[in-house]
Amino acid sequence: MENIIDILNWRYEAKRMTSEKVADEKINTILEAAHLAPSGIGLQPYEIIVINNPEIKEQILPIAMNQSVVTESSHLLVFAVWDEYTKERIDHVFDHLVLKRHSESASYERQRHFAKQFFGNMSIEENFHHAAKQANIALGLAITAAASLEIDTTPMEGFDPLALDELLDLHSKGLRSSMLLVVGYRDKENDWNLKNKKVRKPMEEFVTFYK
Amino acid sequence: MENIIDILNWRYEAKRMTSEKVADEKINTILEAAHLAPSGIGLQPYEIIVINNPEIKEQILPIAMNQSVVTESSHLLVFAVWDEYTKERIDHVFDHLVLKRHSESASYERQRHFAKQFFGNMSIEENFHHAAKQANIALGLAITAAASLEIDTTPMEGFDPLALDELLDLHSKGLRSSMLLVVGYRDKENDWNLKNKKVRKPMEEFVTFYK
Repeated sequence: MENIIDILNWRYEAKRMTSEKVADEKINTILEAAHLAPSGIGLQPYEIIVINNPEIKEQILPIAMNQSVVTESSHLLVFAVWDEYTKERIDHVFDHLVLKRHSESASYERQRHFAKQFFGNMSIEENFHHAAKQANIALGLAITAAASLEIDTTPMEGFDPLALDELLDLHSKGLRSSMLLVVGYRDKENDWNLKNKKVRKPMEEFVTFYK
Repeated sequence: MENIIDILNWRYEAKRMTSEKVADEKINTILEAAHLAPSGIGLQPYEIIVINNPEIKEQILPIAMNQSVVTESSHLLVFAVWDEYTKERIDHVFDHLVLKRHSESASYERQRHFAKQFFGNMSIEENFHHAAKQANIALGLAITAAASLEIDTTPMEGFDPLALDELLDLHSKGLRSSMLLVVGYRDKENDWNLKNKKVRKPMEEFVTFYK
C-alpha cells in the first residue's frame, strides 16, 4: 500500500463505471474496514446491505436520480442505520461485549445505563441523525480501504431514502438507509469527472491553528 | 504502509496518552487526509481547529468529562461544522471551483442552484446534522491516516458542545463543534483499554448480502 495521501489523491468520485466485477475478497476487505470503525459507545448503530443483483440495481436506478453509475457498479453498499437506539439494542451490544471479553456484566453497567439514558433523552429523529453520523465514519474507512486496493467508490446521498427503505424492506428491520456507496471500477474513457481537477477549499480556510 | 486491515486492527481507542508531541509533518498529513475527504456536493461544510496549547487543553478538560487523554494528547482536532448552509457559503464554494477549474460559471449553475434549494428547504438544525455527517467522513479519513503513521486517535463526542463553542468563539464564525479528535501516542503501560479485546458485532449481524 502506498502512502495514504497518494491513495486519497488517486480517489475521486467516479461518475461512470465499467460494470467489471470487484472480487469477493476485495469486497470483504472493504466491509471489514467499515466493521472496524469506531462508533459512539461502541454501539455500531448501522448495518451494510450488499447488492450485486443487476435487477435490484435496475430498480434502485430511478430511486437514485438515474445516476448511471448505480447500474454500472460492481456492488452497491447501502449504509442502513438504526431508526432508534432502543434499550434492547443497547443491551444486545453490551451482552455481546461482556461475553467476548469474559467480563462480569457489572463492569459495563455504568456505560450501559449511560447509553440508555443518553439516547432515551433524544427524540427518535435525533437518534437517527446520531446513528447516521456514526455510519459515516465507517463509510470513510470503507472508501479508504477501497482506494488502497485501487477500487473506486462513489458515496451517494442523492436518492429517495423512503423508496429505498421500502424496496429493501428496511423498515421491518428497524433500519433506515442513510448513504449509498457505489463500488466498482472507473470507466477511464467515458468518465468526464476523471478529467476534472480535484478541488478542495484552500487549506487556510480549512484549518485554524489555535493560538 | 501495511495493509489497511492491519492498520485498523492496530488502532484502538486510547484512554491514556503519553503527552509526547506528534511531529508537525505528521499532523499535516492527518489534516490533509481530512481535507481530501469527499462531501455532499463538494461543499466541505466543516473546518478543523487544531489545539496544542497546554492551557487551552486544561480548559477543555472539564468540558470533556475530565477525560485525561485530553491533556495527555499531543494535539486536539476540533471538527467544527457550518451552523447553516447559507447562500453566501454555497456561492463561495462554487466560485472557488469555477476559478480552480478555469470553467465558465454557467457550467455549475444547476448544481449551485440545487444546493441552495436543497439546504434552504431544510431546517437550520437539519443543516447542522447534515454538515456533521459530512465531517465524520473526514474524521474517518483522519483516523485512518493517523493509524497508517502509528499515531493514536481517540474520537470523542462526550463533551459539552456549547461550552466548547464558547471557549473557541466558534459562534462568531458560524461554526458549531461536532467532534473532538484527540491525537497523540498511547501510554502502553497505563492504558487499561489497550489490554481489552477489540469487540465488534458479529459480521453476520453487520452485513447482509441481498439476494
